[in-house]
Amino acid sequence: MIAKSQKHWTGDVAELLRARQGFALADVDAGATPGHGGDKADAAEDLEAGAEELSEYQERLFARSRTTDAPDSVLLVLQAMDTAGKGGIVRHVVGAVDPQGVALAAFKKPTPEELAHDFLWRIEKRLPPPGFIGVFDRSHYEDVLIGRVRELAPPEEIERRYGAINDFERRLVEGGTRLVKVMLHISPEEQKARLTERLDRPDKYWKYNPGDLDERALWPQYMEAYQTVFERTSTERAPWYVVPADRKWYARLAVQHLLLEALEEIDPQWPPADFDVEAERKRLDAS
Amino acid sequence: MIAKSQKHWTGDVAELLRARQGFALADVDAGATPGHGGDKADAAEDLEAGAEELSEYQERLFARSRTTDAPDSVLLVLQAMDTAGKGGIVRHVVGAVDPQGVALAAFKKPTPEELAHDFLWRIEKRLPPPGFIGVFDRSHYEDVLIGRVRELAPPEEIERRYGAINDFERRLVEGGTRLVKVMLHISPEEQKARLTERLDRPDKYWKYNPGDLDERALWPQYMEAYQTVFERTSTERAPWYVVPADRKWYARLAVQHLLLEALEEIDPQWPPADFDVEAERKRLDAS
Repeated sequence: MIAKSQKHWTGDVAELLRARQGFALADVDAGATPGHGGDKADAAEDLEAGAEELSEYQERLFARSRTTDAPDSVLLVLQAMDTAGKGGIVRHVVGAVDPQGVALAAFKKPTPEELAHDFLWRIEKRLPPPGFIGVFDRSHYEDVLIGRVRELAPPEEIERRYGAINDFERRLVEGGTRLVKVMLHISPEEQKARLTERLDRPDKYWKYNPGDLDERALWPQYMEAYQTVFERTSTERAPWYVVPADRKWYARLAVQHLLLEALEEIDPQWPPADFDVEAERKRLDAS
Repeated sequence: MIAKSQKHWTGDVAELLRARQGFALADVDAGATPGHGGDKADAAEDLEAGAEELSEYQERLFARSRTTDAPDSVLLVLQAMDTAGKGGIVRHVVGAVDPQGVALAAFKKPTPEELAHDFLWRIEKRLPPPGFIGVFDRSHYEDVLIGRVRELAPPEEIERRYGAINDFERRLVEGGTRLVKVMLHISPEEQKARLTERLDRPDKYWKYNPGDLDERALWPQYMEAYQTVFERTSTERAPWYVVPADRKWYARLAVQHLLLEALEEIDPQWPPADFDVEAERKRLDAS
């Protein structure tokens, strides 16, 4: 499927980015632009047109959920190394639609209360209601990423979680949620450039955290943990997409595209009136 | 104060719209554009420029809250008769800033659990955290508006609530929240036109609710309840603004302006680095 509004795709981006059997993260070029035949200016044009299409889909999805039992929702799961651009996706892709239809959740280091529960407890509470586009800025995958790399839980607990995630996500999909799982993939060189910028610009200091360098030092371990995530949890109904993200314009456009596809699949229509239009018109005229 | 980015104001809009002692809602012309010397096209230009300014303020406010103890937040409270344009304010004014810094809460008819608690219980839970712009689409004021008109609570309980609201809001303000309380004021004629449009367009059916006409029939009672709200709860530190809303472009620009003023007052600066920049640069270079 190719979103109608985005003119410069030359290939099926979802197919190109999908982590399927045999996928190797090490083979992905973070600077590539798979399936896109245009430059940055073309991408800007596509992004603007896509934003309009996304907005209309979002409104239809929301509208239908208000007056019918349609259970459909979309959940965008964003995972990435620091500086890869999760925030930019939220700002520039998700930010283009009506905030009234968006349910955004940023998952930080778990609180003691959260840690006392199963790792999916805090996730469950933030799932998007029917009609909403949910966005997870980090997610339950942290519990098999930093959780694994930093050994925050015993190995057998980490092992258990892959299966628990698959069960959980199957339930979500069966309940009407389209899952769009995205890893924004940057190169260590690009991360270095972006961290340098944060140290060069006083208006970026607040985004810099010395702890980021500690995680950066574990780059190979994180890539291995991501590779395992893809092998264990990229399923037919809840696949992972690995989006090259060294070029921000590509990453934003590709994620917008994946969202458009999810909404095309749902194809929500304006709901019919759940009242008698003519009778209401008469009441209104008389009022 | 006049927001620098909005060029076409000829008067102090906050002063002009503020409900102060002696204010009479009945005297407000819902079709007027107090303090604005331009037309719709000028307003569009102002709104776009204002959106950029608002975005920058929002980011500074958010940034500062991440790395300092600054308690400041902004809370926009929106109240109005149906169709007055609350949704459009959220979409076109609030929607222009990064959704990651916005905390949106829409208050519907209370659930049985909510009704079992004090009326401020559900409100408290949705207050914006430091650094956020909160938006209440309806609010605790419903409990002295529909609550009063529909006699959903005994008269002495309604009476009690005005004082409870003032105490509650004083606490918010003392805690660092700038309250921007807005009533969008439309005329009954304009409401009729907007409801008619909802009945004429199948893509608007979902916004129509037969119950809206029942509320419309109580227009004078609602205006009286609003008048009482202004008399009892428009305080020095948490004033009400009554924004004429028959012209959507005016209402949006005026609310944007009120938000800009609140943020100008806070005047958040980029926070200093809470780490040693040079030391981090060395660590990064070596990584």
